[in-house]
Amino acid sequence: MYGLIGNFTAQPGQRDDLIALMTASVDAMPGCLSYVVAKDPNDTDKIWITEVWDSADSHKASLHIPAVAETIRKAMPLIAGFGDHIVTEPVGGFGL
Amino acid sequence: MYGLIGNFTAQPGQRDDLIALMTASVDAMPGCLSYVVAKDPNDTDKIWITEVWDSADSHKASLHIPAVAETIRKAMPLIAGFGDHIVTEPVGGFGL
Repeated sequence: MYGLIGNFTAQPGQRDDLIALMTASVDAMPGCLSYVVAKDPNDTDKIWITEVWDSADSHKASLHIPAVAETIRKAMPLIAGFGDHIVTEPVGGFGL
Repeated sequence: MYGLIGNFTAQPGQRDDLIALMTASVDAMPGCLSYVVAKDPNDTDKIWITEVWDSADSHKASLHIPAVAETIRKAMPLIAGFGDHIVTEPVGGFGL
């Protein structure tokens, strides 16, 4: 499996709009086992994303799904900066 | 919801045993929506954990479940050190 842990910062006051965008079309992503959007409780502009995919290829392919590409296009202007981008290798757990 | 992102380092050569322990009894944890154990592909001793719970209280209570407490007791000697411990506030996604 292929995992991602990352965070980024919304433009001031734009976090909720960004979250709404990122949680709107999350269903039809082949190979996606888990995709979690979370607020950082200690930073009003910061968002954490944790993802698990059945493979790196599935994740890469998802970026070309029209709804996902459109979400990314709309999200970019609301993002002030990118932080951690950690690749992991999920091996088990619950809810996958 | 209540989220955790953390990592820790296994004693040299103990990561697989630690992972086996941590993924063995992950079913009966009330309020657990997601619990992912992952290897760090760039560090042979490092493990990442990402969790989502319906509440902080559910997570706290889980530490007192006999099987979980036993897992923690067995895991401690295999852990060389703890790294990040990030609390998040999951707001949506897929697979929760």
